[in-house]
Amino acid sequence: MPRVSGELSTVRTTRVETIASGVLAVTTTGEGFFEITREVVRFLEQTRARDGAVLLYLRHTSASLVIQENADPDVQTDLVTALKRIAPENAGWVHDVEGPDDMPAHVKAMVNGVSLHIPVANGKIALGTWQGIYLAEHRSNPHQREVMLQFLGQCGAA
Amino acid sequence: MPRVSGELSTVRTTRVETIASGVLAVTTTGEGFFEITREVVRFLEQTRARDGAVLLYLRHTSASLVIQENADPDVQTDLVTALKRIAPENAGWVHDVEGPDDMPAHVKAMVNGVSLHIPVANGKIALGTWQGIYLAEHRSNPHQREVMLQFLGQCGAA
Amino acid sequence: MPRVSGELSTVRTTRVETIASGVLAVTTTGEGFFEITREVVRFLEQTRARDGAVLLYLRHTSASLVIQENADPDVQTDLVTALKRIAPENAGWVHDVEGPDDMPAHVKAMVNGVSLHIPVANGKIALGTWQGIYLAEHRSNPHQREVMLQFLGQCGAA
Repeated sequence: MPRVSGELSTVRTTRVETIASGVLAVTTTGEGFFEITREVVRFLEQTRARDGAVLLYLRHTSASLVIQENADPDVQTDLVTALKRIAPENAGWVHDVEGPDDMPAHVKAMVNGVSLHIPVANGKIALGTWQGIYLAEHRSNPHQREVMLQFLGQCGAA
Repeated sequence: MPRVSGELSTVRTTRVETIASGVLAVTTTGEGFFEITREVVRFLEQTRARDGAVLLYLRHTSASLVIQENADPDVQTDLVTALKRIAPENAGWVHDVEGPDDMPAHVKAMVNGVSLHIPVANGKIALGTWQGIYLAEHRSNPHQREVMLQFLGQCGAA
Repeated sequence: MPRVSGELSTVRTTRVETIASGVLAVTTTGEGFFEITREVVRFLEQTRARDGAVLLYLRHTSASLVIQENADPDVQTDLVTALKRIAPENAGWVHDVEGPDDMPAHVKAMVNGVSLHIPVANGKIALGTWQGIYLAEHRSNPHQREVMLQFLGQCGAA
């Protein structure tokens, strides 16, 4: 494997002072990707976040958090298909008391994960140009989901 | 994809003051899910963690960290099956010097990941009702594993 | 599932004081794993990081961040193969305007993730013996990628 030709920018240092916490309640309409970028940005504005990182945590085992493309909705359709390939309903799961979509949902949540972070710099969330933040619902029916939001870093006016 | 109907709670702010670090040694008995929730809670009690986040990091490449359902043990059985589907032993892996279970174990560790965090609020770990913290062992034989635990936030009496 | 026989080390506590941020520019040569461990260590040296955690974030949706074995290069070859199994090019993806390698790249990025952290203790990054940090490029052609690096914790001389 080739070595990377990595170039490191100037390092900028500020003080860590604050942890701000909030809970985002998300109502899903069944299987699919639900963008929560706007809600996370709103949380950062409320906390007057300047420099640090925002930590997201989903309190469920059959949904997940994903950073993915926010331009073409076909991408989200294909991501749902890809997850079905990884965890089909008819795979002979032992755990099936909660319905055929339940165990696949657990597998999808395991593979995607329920915790992630995004940097915040100069009061802006440092998502890439094409990145959006999504709650991926893996159950067929609508669900009420809770995302815990935390900002660690320095707050204040610009 | 539908927009989310997200509702943001009141934001609560405290000071970040402390980072507490510990190492959890886990002896696995071979492939499977090993719950470490109780040990993580014990770490938070020892540090008198109040508000912040606990960061977990696994120092291995053939095991992983997973947040998953802690109610029905069948779920963990099916998660092991699901990982075998993703990375079967007989897939013609090039890297096979350490045995047929080794390369599948690396794949499973990549897909699940080795780093995650969980929020801590008012001295309580903010796991969802059905969530437990697991070390997933992907090798067939027993192994000695190390999980690094860190609490970032504010400590003190209630 | 058996309970874990976990043993917790003495907990060490220091003050969180600083967040240091940098951007690592990585030029990939197409699909494969590109090790960035040395660059992350260099960032920690520049910030004189002592105790805390380094957070990595990749600003892209068709590449990912992975902690994996750094000893045998065959492992990385097999990881690429494993990801092709999970997301083959000929799976009838709806989103194909950017080429047959594009949608599989999104799936691989979702499964691996774009955010992770590694602890830092006594000025050393706490990677396991066989762990390296990789930027996994999932597109066929070379790309310019940006990794955001942040150290949260205490800095200073040894």
